[in-house]
Amino acid sequence: MSQKYAEQIIVPFYFINSTREMNLSALFNAMLLVSEHQLHALGLDSQQLVAQHGLGWVVTKYHLDVQAMPRLDEQITITTEANSYNKFFCYRTFTVQDAHGQELLRLISNWVMLDIQTRKMVLLDPQIMQQLDCPYSPKVWNFPRIDLVEYPALPREYRTRFFDIDVNGHVNNSIYSDWMLDSLGRDFLLSHDLQAFDIKFEREVHYGETVQSFVQLEQNVSHHLIKSAAGTNAQAQITWKTLPQT
Amino acid sequence: MSQKYAEQIIVPFYFINSTREMNLSALFNAMLLVSEHQLHALGLDSQQLVAQHGLGWVVTKYHLDVQAMPRLDEQITITTEANSYNKFFCYRTFTVQDAHGQELLRLISNWVMLDIQTRKMVLLDPQIMQQLDCPYSPKVWNFPRIDLVEYPALPREYRTRFFDIDVNGHVNNSIYSDWMLDSLGRDFLLSHDLQAFDIKFEREVHYGETVQSFVQLEQNVSHHLIKSAAGTNAQAQITWKTLPQT
Repeated sequence: MSQKYAEQIIVPFYFINSTREMNLSALFNAMLLVSEHQLHALGLDSQQLVAQHGLGWVVTKYHLDVQAMPRLDEQITITTEANSYNKFFCYRTFTVQDAHGQELLRLISNWVMLDIQTRKMVLLDPQIMQQLDCPYSPKVWNFPRIDLVEYPALPREYRTRFFDIDVNGHVNNSIYSDWMLDSLGRDFLLSHDLQAFDIKFEREVHYGETVQSFVQLEQNVSHHLIKSAAGTNAQAQITWKTLPQT
Repeated sequence: MSQKYAEQIIVPFYFINSTREMNLSALFNAMLLVSEHQLHALGLDSQQLVAQHGLGWVVTKYHLDVQAMPRLDEQITITTEANSYNKFFCYRTFTVQDAHGQELLRLISNWVMLDIQTRKMVLLDPQIMQQLDCPYSPKVWNFPRIDLVEYPALPREYRTRFFDIDVNGHVNNSIYSDWMLDSLGRDFLLSHDLQAFDIKFEREVHYGETVQSFVQLEQNVSHHLIKSAAGTNAQAQITWKTLPQT
């Protein structure tokens, strides 16, 4: 059995937007920080893994189910667990609960380990996984399929900025969700609640690149594609609920 | 005497950039959060002030002196104090210290209170200021003058994004420093350390506006101007130290 690890935070003003709800990118950042703290508590450190072994954890897929997004000044508990690993994949879940223990949202994530030099996947090391308190299981988790769609509309362009680049030298992948959601526009974002979000990360984005954010809305699902000159960076789909008009 | 209020944080990965140092915008956000917590501890709440009195605190000037920027995973202590107020201005200082109590940086800020409807300054209310534990003093603090310069080079343009907009409905003014610094480019930012930063906020930026970020470099000082169709939004100047080449 893997161990759960939990932390409480109070949602600060810089994590929210004009709806008073938490930004998706901030949510991903907050959840990742908790998983980093779990590693630290186990005597592991992702920066050390890079420095000493030339290896880095990279997320390849997220599946998020949302009951309600955390709100400004709300006290939430973020819980994470490295559930299991197989040859190449490690699965980690995150849940966010409100102050009454009610679940607000749940994320499952798929991780691989890369050789930092070659950017190729490596076999997961049982010794590292044991230290991480993550049990082996041959089971491969199913993530919802991301539909391939046509994008007839012109994309919105985003130039990468210096502050999009993280310590690993490429765009922090929480930024991708900002590019995707922003391209839907304010009117849409103010009149819809996000219910489910699936994303597949395919290629890193570097400083100086301009990405194109394609969006195609079909009923209550938005399809998203982020592309740079080098190719597809990420694909996603989002299920929305239309809010009652006020 | 005004009371000091302090909090410790460990600098998270989402507050830093590829230099492993804290982003200026994250620094301003982290400091403002501590001052909000001071208000909460005194039974005050800036959202209540808006809802009940139609009033809002707005920062008009920052002056920042930096010895060293906080680094990834560093434990820092942020201390703030509402030092004094006069007819229209309230002065608040912030310091950041490292784990050994060594001062890393110091910020002074100039605040006014706006009528939210008319966006006009109002006289500071002695009752509110007493609650805030801020003493009256007729003394007007001097902030370094921001030089007016020519900007012969073409500006870099930034379209406002949905997630730039905060709960008050306009661009969070920490974003201005991202626009200013980003326009200097990666090569400059990787080869220089920020030593002092002065900014004067003149006009709010709204969703949908595109701003122009002008920059003019003179010796070790960069001059900055953020302009939208409506006029000047902010002016700043930054003193830099050239890093030894590695």
